[in-house]
Amino acid sequence: MRYVDLNCDLGESFGNYKCGMDEEVIPFITSANVACGFHASDPVVMQKTVKTAKEHQVCVGAHPGYQDLVGFGRRNMVLQPAEITAIVQYQIGALSAFCTAAGITLQHVKPHGALYNMAVKDEKIAAAICEGIASIDQQLILLGPAHSQLVAAAEKCGLPTANEVFADRAYEEDGTLVARSKPGAVITDRDTAIARVIQMVKKGTVTAITGKEIEVEADSICVHGDSPAALEFVRSIHAALQAEGIGLAPMKKVISA
Amino acid sequence: MRYVDLNCDLGESFGNYKCGMDEEVIPFITSANVACGFHASDPVVMQKTVKTAKEHQVCVGAHPGYQDLVGFGRRNMVLQPAEITAIVQYQIGALSAFCTAAGITLQHVKPHGALYNMAVKDEKIAAAICEGIASIDQQLILLGPAHSQLVAAAEKCGLPTANEVFADRAYEEDGTLVARSKPGAVITDRDTAIARVIQMVKKGTVTAITGKEIEVEADSICVHGDSPAALEFVRSIHAALQAEGIGLAPMKKVISA
Amino acid sequence: MRYVDLNCDLGESFGNYKCGMDEEVIPFITSANVACGFHASDPVVMQKTVKTAKEHQVCVGAHPGYQDLVGFGRRNMVLQPAEITAIVQYQIGALSAFCTAAGITLQHVKPHGALYNMAVKDEKIAAAICEGIASIDQQLILLGPAHSQLVAAAEKCGLPTANEVFADRAYEEDGTLVARSKPGAVITDRDTAIARVIQMVKKGTVTAITGKEIEVEADSICVHGDSPAALEFVRSIHAALQAEGIGLAPMKKVISA
Amino acid sequence: MRYVDLNCDLGESFGNYKCGMDEEVIPFITSANVACGFHASDPVVMQKTVKTAKEHQVCVGAHPGYQDLVGFGRRNMVLQPAEITAIVQYQIGALSAFCTAAGITLQHVKPHGALYNMAVKDEKIAAAICEGIASIDQQLILLGPAHSQLVAAAEKCGLPTANEVFADRAYEEDGTLVARSKPGAVITDRDTAIARVIQMVKKGTVTAITGKEIEVEADSICVHGDSPAALEFVRSIHAALQAEGIGLAPMKKVISA
Repeated sequence: MRYVDLNCDLGESFGNYKCGMDEEVIPFITSANVACGFHASDPVVMQKTVKTAKEHQVCVGAHPGYQDLVGFGRRNMVLQPAEITAIVQYQIGALSAFCTAAGITLQHVKPHGALYNMAVKDEKIAAAICEGIASIDQQLILLGPAHSQLVAAAEKCGLPTANEVFADRAYEEDGTLVARSKPGAVITDRDTAIARVIQMVKKGTVTAITGKEIEVEADSICVHGDSPAALEFVRSIHAALQAEGIGLAPMKKVISA
Repeated sequence: MRYVDLNCDLGESFGNYKCGMDEEVIPFITSANVACGFHASDPVVMQKTVKTAKEHQVCVGAHPGYQDLVGFGRRNMVLQPAEITAIVQYQIGALSAFCTAAGITLQHVKPHGALYNMAVKDEKIAAAICEGIASIDQQLILLGPAHSQLVAAAEKCGLPTANEVFADRAYEEDGTLVARSKPGAVITDRDTAIARVIQMVKKGTVTAITGKEIEVEADSICVHGDSPAALEFVRSIHAALQAEGIGLAPMKKVISA
Repeated sequence: MRYVDLNCDLGESFGNYKCGMDEEVIPFITSANVACGFHASDPVVMQKTVKTAKEHQVCVGAHPGYQDLVGFGRRNMVLQPAEITAIVQYQIGALSAFCTAAGITLQHVKPHGALYNMAVKDEKIAAAICEGIASIDQQLILLGPAHSQLVAAAEKCGLPTANEVFADRAYEEDGTLVARSKPGAVITDRDTAIARVIQMVKKGTVTAITGKEIEVEADSICVHGDSPAALEFVRSIHAALQAEGIGLAPMKKVISA
Repeated sequence: MRYVDLNCDLGESFGNYKCGMDEEVIPFITSANVACGFHASDPVVMQKTVKTAKEHQVCVGAHPGYQDLVGFGRRNMVLQPAEITAIVQYQIGALSAFCTAAGITLQHVKPHGALYNMAVKDEKIAAAICEGIASIDQQLILLGPAHSQLVAAAEKCGLPTANEVFADRAYEEDGTLVARSKPGAVITDRDTAIARVIQMVKKGTVTAITGKEIEVEADSICVHGDSPAALEFVRSIHAALQAEGIGLAPMKKVISA
């Protein structure tokens, strides 16, 4: 049986501010990327999110970001590699405490927002992140897009990796995402998006924007739970995968299968 | 041989702001209370402080505080017990990451500033802190003053405890500190302060402000490294203890001796 | 014609976090208490909120709070009076910049959350706040509850004051609010609440929880726009006041009438 | 008589963290760039710094920066122009409150750190800053380096400008600073640095790194007070200017002379 993971950002609320539809989306996913208090979340939210994930047998990953709460970690910042390593270590450690308290093991790390986007293309940033992860636990899975500096850096550090794919994004022939600024970068038709996901998981291929069918490793599908439409899409993709006989499982099971 | 621990707050610098004389004081102490980024410190400072402590074979403890950087964690704040538990878990986890990366084990937890002062007298706050500690690692030592709610709460949670004493503070007959607002609360004469410490460690007693000799458990002596005068006092007390044949050792050794 | 002001907290969103139904409630109010970035809001939100208020001819007031974003300024904190004065000055100044840029004049100041609640009862905190306000502009109106230390302190500083009343809260015979912990403290029946407001504005009296009719000055009614139910209540009270021939006007007009 | 201004960053302490030698340097300068709480400083420090500046008849300017306390505003961040305008307005407003309370008028604005460095070269960032300044007070002087996008943007907005020069930096033939990465970028010999300053002020020229003498407008000299060596240099330059018969005056006087 083929397996695939569905990963979603959770625990992005902060104090009085509610963000996302965590309770609604969690039954449909298998891995949660939990914000760690730098770009979103706070200790109370983290504690609660980890507990909720455990109740739903959803595996927990750290989602470290830049320390930019007002920008939600989405604004590019220029940090020294040593600073990046330290903020990644800090955030993984903080989330790990709630995992330990809940009696579960941290499964993976996925950088957030600008840190993710910059690391995908920048070897030094990617290395700084992965060295931070590896310094804490060499069993932690790095979740990132295939063909990225992130995944390459993780492999250099000896970390297990999981490749994530995006249902709603077009791909270049080299397996990287088409830049959002280009026409056709975003797949807006839901049925097309779902069909692409099924193909990526079952056949291991996707039709690039050029029309060429390329190989793609789909360990995990990145989904969102921050709007009713996003939630509805998760339900649809969840149902479609099951209808196709594809198993849903946390990435640690997918990559060891 | 009698042993006693010397504990000192370290790692209180923040970004561009330098605070304390960590490099100078660390050769004279045996345990470091390392700030965790809420009232002071940042990930880079924490990483460096843990490394430095390891180099000097100084044991590391977490020094969690209120999230009040501008107030240095010294301003009383009213949090729900669940919030306190969560901020303690978060901060312990964050510091633990740097300990793991450095290959050392976190030894203890000492609440900082207003959190410490409030917990000493408030059973609920003390319980919230100790439940947070115990949820992560039941081997973590709670460092607090004897006869405090903090130590009582730690014992209830099954945590090991270490009692700290203050060289420069007067004691009431019940073993609690004389409030700073009262005359005679602070011992200003250095020789007197050192003599009191020696007595506390060797005889297990101290002369209360009333003149009565009371029992006191001195597992660890709280010292400071934030001024040249403080540093000089640490040197003196270090030398005096050695001259008296008292061994200096981290609190984990002292309390298991 | 009698006039009364309807004041509401606005501009409490922060970065990616949306909070409140500002657009929906603003047509029904006459004064806005705009958060200043310490307990909520950010510069972009403040700028936008001031512009929106201007478009709706709603007068703008500063809503300074404790620097406690994760606690939304609702957690009691112990600051020195000089610190309180400074944080009030800072926040008023920051908001004033957006008023100046928009070509309007700041009308009033209403402390937020824990700062408000503490100042209502604490003479020193109230004085620290009002001295901060008066140091910047002696025309700024202090908005607070009648019979409070806040209003008394404002009068001492020579500031104009506006008394606010609460539609959904019961009053003691001395004109102070019944503590929320007591039975009957909150008026849950909407019609009763509206009838009380009409009486407060038209007759200048309210029936205290003891049954005695007491005098009350109602310059401004505090309303909320943070939920559909709150919004519906504002619409109802707005309509009821108009039906009674009571004019709605910003507090600066009400208190000079 | 020729006049020149000496500007220095002041008020960079934060809470318990002391930074800079404000008290020592202030007798020798004529304009202070006061941090506004985003990259450094806090309301209490700002209040005190403004008072101290007033006592020494030093004119006050706002020194707005990125909201990056741990990075001291020195790390490049990518903000939307509208965000930059808003953070500049916010910070100017906040500092203005303390000026108003102290009975002085804000003289100028000098962006700090990464915001300054990015704006010097980036037209959009420069425009966003200057539009923010102009929206508040068109009399505020923009302090920046000659030949920069910052000064150009200020002129477009109708703001008065003051050109600052650097005693310890080499210049290209086009009047811009030699990048720090190039050899010879920093003038390390104190006497050479002082002689260059005298020449810039008296003759309006400086010898570029190529050896060519170029024109330079020196309204203000940027000095530092963050170390004993920096302080000593300020004393020296102050004495040298006086010995040359050059008057020291705030930039508002210099540019209107």
